[in-house]
Amino acid sequence: MSLGPLRVSNIFDSEYSRVKLDPDPIWPDSTRTRLPGSGRTRPVPDYPGLAGLDPSLAGLYPCPTTRVWPDSTRARLPESSRTLPESGRIRPVPDYPSLAGLYPSLAGHPPVPTNRLHPDFAEMVQIVTSIKEVNSGIIRLNLKKRYVVQGSNGEYVLLNPDERIKLVKHVFQMTPSDKLIIAGSGCESPRETILLTNKMADAGAQAVLIVTPHYYKGRMTSEALTKYYTKVADESKVPVILYSVPANTSIDLDPEVIVKLSQHPNIVGVKDSGGDISKIGSLVHRTSKNNFQVLSGSASFLLPAYVVGCVGGICALSNVLGQEVCQLESLFKKGKMAEAKLLQHRLIAPNMAVTKRFGVAGLKKSMDWLGMYGGPTRSPLLPLSAEEEQSLRSVFRDNGFL
Amino acid sequence: MSLGPLRVSNIFDSEYSRVKLDPDPIWPDSTRTRLPGSGRTRPVPDYPGLAGLDPSLAGLYPCPTTRVWPDSTRARLPESSRTLPESGRIRPVPDYPSLAGLYPSLAGHPPVPTNRLHPDFAEMVQIVTSIKEVNSGIIRLNLKKRYVVQGSNGEYVLLNPDERIKLVKHVFQMTPSDKLIIAGSGCESPRETILLTNKMADAGAQAVLIVTPHYYKGRMTSEALTKYYTKVADESKVPVILYSVPANTSIDLDPEVIVKLSQHPNIVGVKDSGGDISKIGSLVHRTSKNNFQVLSGSASFLLPAYVVGCVGGICALSNVLGQEVCQLESLFKKGKMAEAKLLQHRLIAPNMAVTKRFGVAGLKKSMDWLGMYGGPTRSPLLPLSAEEEQSLRSVFRDNGFL
Amino acid sequence: MSLGPLRVSNIFDSEYSRVKLDPDPIWPDSTRTRLPGSGRTRPVPDYPGLAGLDPSLAGLYPCPTTRVWPDSTRARLPESSRTLPESGRIRPVPDYPSLAGLYPSLAGHPPVPTNRLHPDFAEMVQIVTSIKEVNSGIIRLNLKKRYVVQGSNGEYVLLNPDERIKLVKHVFQMTPSDKLIIAGSGCESPRETILLTNKMADAGAQAVLIVTPHYYKGRMTSEALTKYYTKVADESKVPVILYSVPANTSIDLDPEVIVKLSQHPNIVGVKDSGGDISKIGSLVHRTSKNNFQVLSGSASFLLPAYVVGCVGGICALSNVLGQEVCQLESLFKKGKMAEAKLLQHRLIAPNMAVTKRFGVAGLKKSMDWLGMYGGPTRSPLLPLSAEEEQSLRSVFRDNGFL
Amino acid sequence: MSLGPLRVSNIFDSEYSRVKLDPDPIWPDSTRTRLPGSGRTRPVPDYPGLAGLDPSLAGLYPCPTTRVWPDSTRARLPESSRTLPESGRIRPVPDYPSLAGLYPSLAGHPPVPTNRLHPDFAEMVQIVTSIKEVNSGIIRLNLKKRYVVQGSNGEYVLLNPDERIKLVKHVFQMTPSDKLIIAGSGCESPRETILLTNKMADAGAQAVLIVTPHYYKGRMTSEALTKYYTKVADESKVPVILYSVPANTSIDLDPEVIVKLSQHPNIVGVKDSGGDISKIGSLVHRTSKNNFQVLSGSASFLLPAYVVGCVGGICALSNVLGQEVCQLESLFKKGKMAEAKLLQHRLIAPNMAVTKRFGVAGLKKSMDWLGMYGGPTRSPLLPLSAEEEQSLRSVFRDNGFL
Repeated sequence: MSLGPLRVSNIFDSEYSRVKLDPDPIWPDSTRTRLPGSGRTRPVPDYPGLAGLDPSLAGLYPCPTTRVWPDSTRARLPESSRTLPESGRIRPVPDYPSLAGLYPSLAGHPPVPTNRLHPDFAEMVQIVTSIKEVNSGIIRLNLKKRYVVQGSNGEYVLLNPDERIKLVKHVFQMTPSDKLIIAGSGCESPRETILLTNKMADAGAQAVLIVTPHYYKGRMTSEALTKYYTKVADESKVPVILYSVPANTSIDLDPEVIVKLSQHPNIVGVKDSGGDISKIGSLVHRTSKNNFQVLSGSASFLLPAYVVGCVGGICALSNVLGQEVCQLESLFKKGKMAEAKLLQHRLIAPNMAVTKRFGVAGLKKSMDWLGMYGGPTRSPLLPLSAEEEQSLRSVFRDNGFL
Repeated sequence: MSLGPLRVSNIFDSEYSRVKLDPDPIWPDSTRTRLPGSGRTRPVPDYPGLAGLDPSLAGLYPCPTTRVWPDSTRARLPESSRTLPESGRIRPVPDYPSLAGLYPSLAGHPPVPTNRLHPDFAEMVQIVTSIKEVNSGIIRLNLKKRYVVQGSNGEYVLLNPDERIKLVKHVFQMTPSDKLIIAGSGCESPRETILLTNKMADAGAQAVLIVTPHYYKGRMTSEALTKYYTKVADESKVPVILYSVPANTSIDLDPEVIVKLSQHPNIVGVKDSGGDISKIGSLVHRTSKNNFQVLSGSASFLLPAYVVGCVGGICALSNVLGQEVCQLESLFKKGKMAEAKLLQHRLIAPNMAVTKRFGVAGLKKSMDWLGMYGGPTRSPLLPLSAEEEQSLRSVFRDNGFL
Repeated sequence: MSLGPLRVSNIFDSEYSRVKLDPDPIWPDSTRTRLPGSGRTRPVPDYPGLAGLDPSLAGLYPCPTTRVWPDSTRARLPESSRTLPESGRIRPVPDYPSLAGLYPSLAGHPPVPTNRLHPDFAEMVQIVTSIKEVNSGIIRLNLKKRYVVQGSNGEYVLLNPDERIKLVKHVFQMTPSDKLIIAGSGCESPRETILLTNKMADAGAQAVLIVTPHYYKGRMTSEALTKYYTKVADESKVPVILYSVPANTSIDLDPEVIVKLSQHPNIVGVKDSGGDISKIGSLVHRTSKNNFQVLSGSASFLLPAYVVGCVGGICALSNVLGQEVCQLESLFKKGKMAEAKLLQHRLIAPNMAVTKRFGVAGLKKSMDWLGMYGGPTRSPLLPLSAEEEQSLRSVFRDNGFL
Repeated sequence: MSLGPLRVSNIFDSEYSRVKLDPDPIWPDSTRTRLPGSGRTRPVPDYPGLAGLDPSLAGLYPCPTTRVWPDSTRARLPESSRTLPESGRIRPVPDYPSLAGLYPSLAGHPPVPTNRLHPDFAEMVQIVTSIKEVNSGIIRLNLKKRYVVQGSNGEYVLLNPDERIKLVKHVFQMTPSDKLIIAGSGCESPRETILLTNKMADAGAQAVLIVTPHYYKGRMTSEALTKYYTKVADESKVPVILYSVPANTSIDLDPEVIVKLSQHPNIVGVKDSGGDISKIGSLVHRTSKNNFQVLSGSASFLLPAYVVGCVGGICALSNVLGQEVCQLESLFKKGKMAEAKLLQHRLIAPNMAVTKRFGVAGLKKSMDWLGMYGGPTRSPLLPLSAEEEQSLRSVFRDNGFL
């Protein structure tokens, strides 16, 4: 396989810094207060997608012409199809992708491990293999529909922008065209986030997952976060999914902000990893008229999340126990609540082990055990100690997964 | 030296201080490690009670004779029936009371308001009326089975021990004999907790709800809390329910501790108000062989709690919207998940309003609106400001309850 | 209906519950806004006391007649001398006691250990001995001036009100009349706090230390805490010292509240254990015109606290290393900053060990080592494990105190 | 002035990604345990620098040859002088720069404002002017010795690596050669941090300030952080200063970790912004034999920090009230403690206002007021509202600075 087109670096660098942005601040003050107004109409989309896991999902939906975000003069609507710049390959882009169903976050598949990053990219061959394994793994795991590239478990903060884009491109090239690819493109500044988002869109991402900025947490007021996401969604070529993950950011995205942003025509959902099931239920309730999709951010509370109205989940555990996670969804949908409860019970401890307790290292280690490629963590994340590994193994064994 | 002038004891009740306790520390170190051992057997109880809300629940269950807590030499088992000391009235005491179903916490029924506490108890008449209102209210609200006296919303920390006991006695005398009465008896020291617990039992309480001690939170290790609850449960005349309420105590009772304590023959359940639904599901899972009952501590996540296996809930909101809370349980039990979801959605905001946002003052105010007696808060809790009251009213109105 | 059987009051002390309080709520709304106003005048007191450690401090200061708290109609000024009810002994009560200097908190002197509390008070002999040891110890330690009875390290939350009062009385009887006795009298409700405060005053306390109420922490707004302390200070027979100890209460008393309360004629100071030296400096600055005394709540930052203007400290470590703590004050006052720095350095680790790391158990154990009586902790506080004890010993040895 | 050499972009991009790193993980397990050992010797440096603010500080210190970090086989010692790659200019690099004295963090001087970043760098002229103003301003403010480029208030997380390097270069070119330039180079991964560090060193930085990685905070154990900093310091061309800023990162760098790292020959100090003066005192005490320099991270507690042994501070407030901050140091050094106390008092509220309360926006606004260039904040940071600006102005006016 030719690695030529993988050379994103000449796309990136200077172009990256030279893009001319509109002057900042960009939001007239009137924007915010007009948001909930009536100028905006979002039609019930033609796609039925929220219901199933069927592979027809990623079909081409016509772009609704009546969708207007009140202050949007730019008409920056995502195109309904796109030719990727370098590959010439065409992939239909769902206008509003349905987020229903379950995603592995590709957490443990580090196609560009830190310690093998050489100038000549000789390891690309291995990377490609790894991606193939990803696919076969996912197919085996019955996660038919979509992937998330560069979520928290994808160690995105440990890669540079060049690598982040490259990774999206690899995944795009390796996966069947009926898969939805969601890429994590959040940075602290809206400027960087927009640049990265659109480069990822060019590289094949059909939606982006954008974490809350968090360094200046004392000043990340509701107003600041609303403006940040509005700006990014205005400029993004693809639909935006909000991402609240307080365990990493110490910021829990305020429900008021989410409800307001759910009206933006280019913001289609939220992944909430905070674990406050009351908040999640409330979000479903309060955004129910906005074609807004709420996703569980963890398998620890996936069944409760479905019960209160989530359409799916982006779960670290899907990388390890994808089949079981999908089975949980299926049991819920068939109304087999007693069985679903028992399966949910068995998933809690393994999920806690690969998230809160042992993090990325635990996730990767358990992937190795279960026949996938986890591989080493990137610094500064440490591998599990022998004792931690033993403890992780007990959890999987005690719940019948090893 | 003359000890005469030291006798302050005629100011306070001597009985209270004179009880002779075993020397402290009371636990041989070996106790803890033996806890999960096999010496203990707890028979599957004869009562089927976990299932319904039927009034037959509070029947007399024979005391299982084989129940042995490994280190218990005191055989301090709750008697299966008791004659209350002063009234001569006999009330059957369920050995292991089923906690299934929903409880109002008697939060808003302040029979002894601070500002009406006169020496001659002239207001007792009003108190009695108030209690009657409690009953009629509860009956109207279809909460058929049981009450909690002196939970957090019962402002228990603002009463002295005398009043706390008196209140239990009043409720006992005013309520039909088929009701289960659960009383909050937690204090910082096990000594005080045991004394208060057994006085409350004498006054009519059939189970006690015991909050985590929390003042020395830096030293409330798993070991310290395990010993505390073991000691209290060993000495308590009635079954003990653990109570974890981090919003008030800044202590979230560790799952390991709960699982270990679930094996104690006199600890029958836990009320968890922390809202971590993964933890709650995990508790149900890990205590499933111990006849241990997990209760949701809030109506905000009541449906998810049922879904993961809770048997019921002790919910502030039951004081206000008791009928609706019971309806939610009923919908779940009939498998009407879609309707249950919609009702749960509508309950979240009102529940948040009467707990996190406005606390006891919000709970009492909304009781006043809905035809029950809420009354004033006790100092240092302030009444709602006009603006807060307006905001509370909107929440109830927007969700269709006003 | 007969109310006869309701009389539980002969179990508990009736006197305690029978005190007639003014109706509640007691504060007209206008009170709060008028607080900082000019209606109040507090004369510069005649006492020079803030400066030294000299034993003349506890002298009788004339009660200034011009001191008026704007909304005070009760003229509840502390009397300038009092006859203690039972002993007939007269102790001059300083109107505004100077808080300058260092206090041991009597933390480790458990005159009424839980496990030796018998009805006949046989152990009182030992208690008395213990108190004597306290005195001799303190004299040895060069802490000439005053004691705090029932601070956090005095395990006050583990005693009942009867014991708390008794303890004050014992200390009063055992100590020379030139000592200032400060008692911890905080409860959750202002009603209980006032009753306990005035009973402690009758028992010999010359000032009280009142911790923030904290159970309903979500509603302990600035307004609620201001009203709480105002009410208590209005009714207290003796001057009040505010006490903020977030490690135990999870509440950090807001500077705005402290500054406002510093204008109350019966609130004379604050003990701040939070460790935020910027806040402490700011408090000194902003209350400098109010004859308000700021006390360091810990020996870990005692030198910095003196540097920013504290008049003294109430420090756990004074119970163990009283002489060294006093020496630190002395070095600061003589301007020997380099020596003071070195001594402060040596005190940090031992202080952390007897507070944050090992708490009361660590404090008591180290007292035992250093020739005083520490004794056992009260439940639910556990004694140190062997390993913890070893670690504690290292800290004291490494810094040259063992 | 020719802007040619400012074109850093061709330095950056491909070179940046192509650097070959040693395989990872790089630390044999034995490294960590050997750290405190005796194999390492760090000579008392020849420079007397810790004492004053004199301009002779940045002189050339010979590289001590006996300095050995036990596991260091790379002998990656900073060269004692360096020719900057592009400018041909030689700047003596102090081996161990003295950190004594006070630094402005160049926070408010945004030479590359987001909204004016054009491809042709036309605004560079203005940038240069701005830098010149910085210098004159600093000279006026009597901050004679050094600058910090890209601390938290320098909005470093909102710039891309290219811009971060460029900014260091600009500052280098605009400042007299007797100034020490410290640059913030922290990234989440050690790989990125090392690359950026050494590029900044090439651009003129003589020391780097490295914030704790924090995204995976649940796994940033003491071991992980120790390895991170050891790796970075091993590879860095210039001395490293640790940077703990929990308000932004929610991570408070553990004292044990700092003490261990203080033995590394290329780690010369720590900036601690946490405000725990006990921790700061303890750090000074425990690293006193390691030629390790502790810096106050805030002007709110600068005097207490000096009192417990800090050698200086990196303070946001130095950008605004540089003269006053320097005066505070001077008063302390002359032993004028009473005057120092009063000045410290006046600085607390302004400092809190430009940090905790209003953050970067407050800092920039107050710089504008005081005759320097603050300018707009970068998104997502919002400018102050009119009300916030009013409140900020009051704080400066009330303390006599406006």
